[in-house]
Amino acid sequence: MELAYQKRTQEELRQELAALRQRFDALKAKDMKLNMARGKPGKAQLDLVSDLLGVLVTPEDCISDGVDARNYGELSGLPAAKRLFADILGCKPEECFIGGNASLQLMYDTISKAFTHGLLHSKQPWSKLPRVKWLCPAPGYDRHFKITQSFGCEMITVPMTPDGPDMDMVEELVRDPEVKGIWCVPKYSNPDGIVYSDETVRRLASLKPAAPDFTLMWDNAYCVHEFDGDFVPFSDILTLCREACNPDMVFEFASTSKITFPGAGISVMASSVDNLKYMEKLAGIQIISYDKINQLRHVKYLRDKAHTLELMQKHAAIIRPKFACVLRHLEEEIAPLGLATWQKPKGGYFVSVNTLPGLAKRTLALCKEAGVTMTGAGATFPYGVDPNDSNIRIAPTLPPVEELEQAMEIFCTCLRLAALEQLIKE
Amino acid sequence: MELAYQKRTQEELRQELAALRQRFDALKAKDMKLNMARGKPGKAQLDLVSDLLGVLVTPEDCISDGVDARNYGELSGLPAAKRLFADILGCKPEECFIGGNASLQLMYDTISKAFTHGLLHSKQPWSKLPRVKWLCPAPGYDRHFKITQSFGCEMITVPMTPDGPDMDMVEELVRDPEVKGIWCVPKYSNPDGIVYSDETVRRLASLKPAAPDFTLMWDNAYCVHEFDGDFVPFSDILTLCREACNPDMVFEFASTSKITFPGAGISVMASSVDNLKYMEKLAGIQIISYDKINQLRHVKYLRDKAHTLELMQKHAAIIRPKFACVLRHLEEEIAPLGLATWQKPKGGYFVSVNTLPGLAKRTLALCKEAGVTMTGAGATFPYGVDPNDSNIRIAPTLPPVEELEQAMEIFCTCLRLAALEQLIKE
Repeated sequence: MELAYQKRTQEELRQELAALRQRFDALKAKDMKLNMARGKPGKAQLDLVSDLLGVLVTPEDCISDGVDARNYGELSGLPAAKRLFADILGCKPEECFIGGNASLQLMYDTISKAFTHGLLHSKQPWSKLPRVKWLCPAPGYDRHFKITQSFGCEMITVPMTPDGPDMDMVEELVRDPEVKGIWCVPKYSNPDGIVYSDETVRRLASLKPAAPDFTLMWDNAYCVHEFDGDFVPFSDILTLCREACNPDMVFEFASTSKITFPGAGISVMASSVDNLKYMEKLAGIQIISYDKINQLRHVKYLRDKAHTLELMQKHAAIIRPKFACVLRHLEEEIAPLGLATWQKPKGGYFVSVNTLPGLAKRTLALCKEAGVTMTGAGATFPYGVDPNDSNIRIAPTLPPVEELEQAMEIFCTCLRLAALEQLIKE
Repeated sequence: MELAYQKRTQEELRQELAALRQRFDALKAKDMKLNMARGKPGKAQLDLVSDLLGVLVTPEDCISDGVDARNYGELSGLPAAKRLFADILGCKPEECFIGGNASLQLMYDTISKAFTHGLLHSKQPWSKLPRVKWLCPAPGYDRHFKITQSFGCEMITVPMTPDGPDMDMVEELVRDPEVKGIWCVPKYSNPDGIVYSDETVRRLASLKPAAPDFTLMWDNAYCVHEFDGDFVPFSDILTLCREACNPDMVFEFASTSKITFPGAGISVMASSVDNLKYMEKLAGIQIISYDKINQLRHVKYLRDKAHTLELMQKHAAIIRPKFACVLRHLEEEIAPLGLATWQKPKGGYFVSVNTLPGLAKRTLALCKEAGVTMTGAGATFPYGVDPNDSNIRIAPTLPPVEELEQAMEIFCTCLRLAALEQLIKE
């Protein structure tokens, strides 16, 4: 077993650095171009689901519950698509609004409409308020943070715990009426892969915020996305909020982006019937309906939750070796040296590595130099600033395993180099 | 030839009323349910284009210019989709941003972002301004007016002429810096079916608005939608604006909603490269890309402008008899009585009828009573208020011709009844 860097002498560290620089140069000379920047499914996953392309062929195929999916109409989506998502999420069909190929768009539009028109319980549009504060459990999803940043929210970082966001802090913060909401990825959180505990979920549903229009933005992006083991049941947040007398406090989002095609799936916004009624009045100005043909394609292809879970096991078989590869490299090469810690997720799309303070940016700069693009350092924190310069999100699904092996060799080399550069005194 | 109602005696009018009431009751007794409320293509048109469903089948089909359309990425759309729309609109591919199934959404989002973030030349987001005024050529498209109404714009009605909006008035109004834009449907305007004259288009492109972020919202919804005669070439507004030193003043919109599937087409926003660069920064927060699989489906199905025009002639063959039916009924039954005037469009989706003042609401109420739903009276004016209660939009494309014959019989009967009720003195 290798000795942790912190326990080595300066001379030993210098020797290690010289050896690693040689290794780095050799890797760099291979002139690779690998991308682990985003949670993009790989080609094998795309091919796995490409039968989706052919499930609707004739005009007759396009009729669903008496609706011709080809024509205008049905703002909130096909009833069959609502039933599908209700089955998957554990809510009711009438609580589902079906979107286009991006749940991100539904989230953005919800925040945007809060600013331009206000939500159901808003006294005025948020654009009229002097300040809007927003809770950001971090590390978290960069695209969430960019939305609230784009609208000028004052983002407040809430630390993540192994059970989800620090709830003592959340409960305290929501007593401020300027705090209007919180981003949550409750199952296989982005990037940590943490599943919020029952207690955390219950406490979130039972919040007593000062703002009447406080909103849980519940991005259930990985609701059926186990890659290691069976499907893990998860409470329906709409029911919990209703039972806690907060029926209109939550908007839940999900999509098929990592079930079928990332760029051509369908999405859902689930919320109370009253919330949807209010939001549909606003959405009806913006769109006549999202693409119902693609909704129907998905209904025919995925059928129901049980059939969807079968498909997810096939995805799991493809991506499980990739996660195993990442974890093996980390455990063999980084763990003994004491340079970082990480969760071992059983679902989702990421491995979140927390290096010793001050190593993330340098590690990723070195990776880039060697041809491996990763999510930018800091991206997992509000405003893109990681106070410890420590969190690195690894997204292993896009490259084939062979390339991933190389990418992880580069990553581990770069992390070690960054640590050595820091530890060696001039 | 029948005598115009205005020239008849009260006694003659009473006799006519009695006869028409009988006819109305007989029609009502048929218990029909016909819908001419929206410009919805009919089933024969949907069937015409349903081969679109099957053009992409295998994983290999999904690659376009080296991009896998199934995966994330390419915010502004597939290069091939940009080339297709550039060919159709006469602009450049790099001036095209490809959207989802609704150009309406692209329009809404443009206005929404103007309010929340401002446009390229805005000094501040419009939500920070005390007042935003907007020019609305009327009669016009109700969904346009609802967008600007929803954002609280003060809408100013600009009368339509046979050449397009009253340009003297527009040129005068844009000297007010609070006037931020104008809605235009330049070819086969909704609802009049008017094609803006070259002179009008040139004057619009050459406007000298006081507001640096004044915006032409150029909804070229019917750019290739001739149903009577050959394709009519139309100037590229982006070129004209550039030549008039207004390169960033225009956003043009179009879609395949009435070329392929109304509910599952693709859309485009065309604008200067600088405008798109600015807007893509904002759009990149909202979406990763619109559905590129559907973009590629359309590229393979429509190919280019020439092939698209061939398809439009097949649509024309289906809808031409419907417009002929509407015009025949109006000419035979309404023209001699002097109750209304109308344009005879050669493209687009509507016939716009201007009744004598005060007859529109009553006519449509009677239609509804007899089972025919039409676009609500007033819908073609800002705030849904037609000052003369005169304009009625007939959308003949959805019903089969047989049903349209009945619907038009009902419509003409109802218009005559409404006129008689007004003319007869108690």
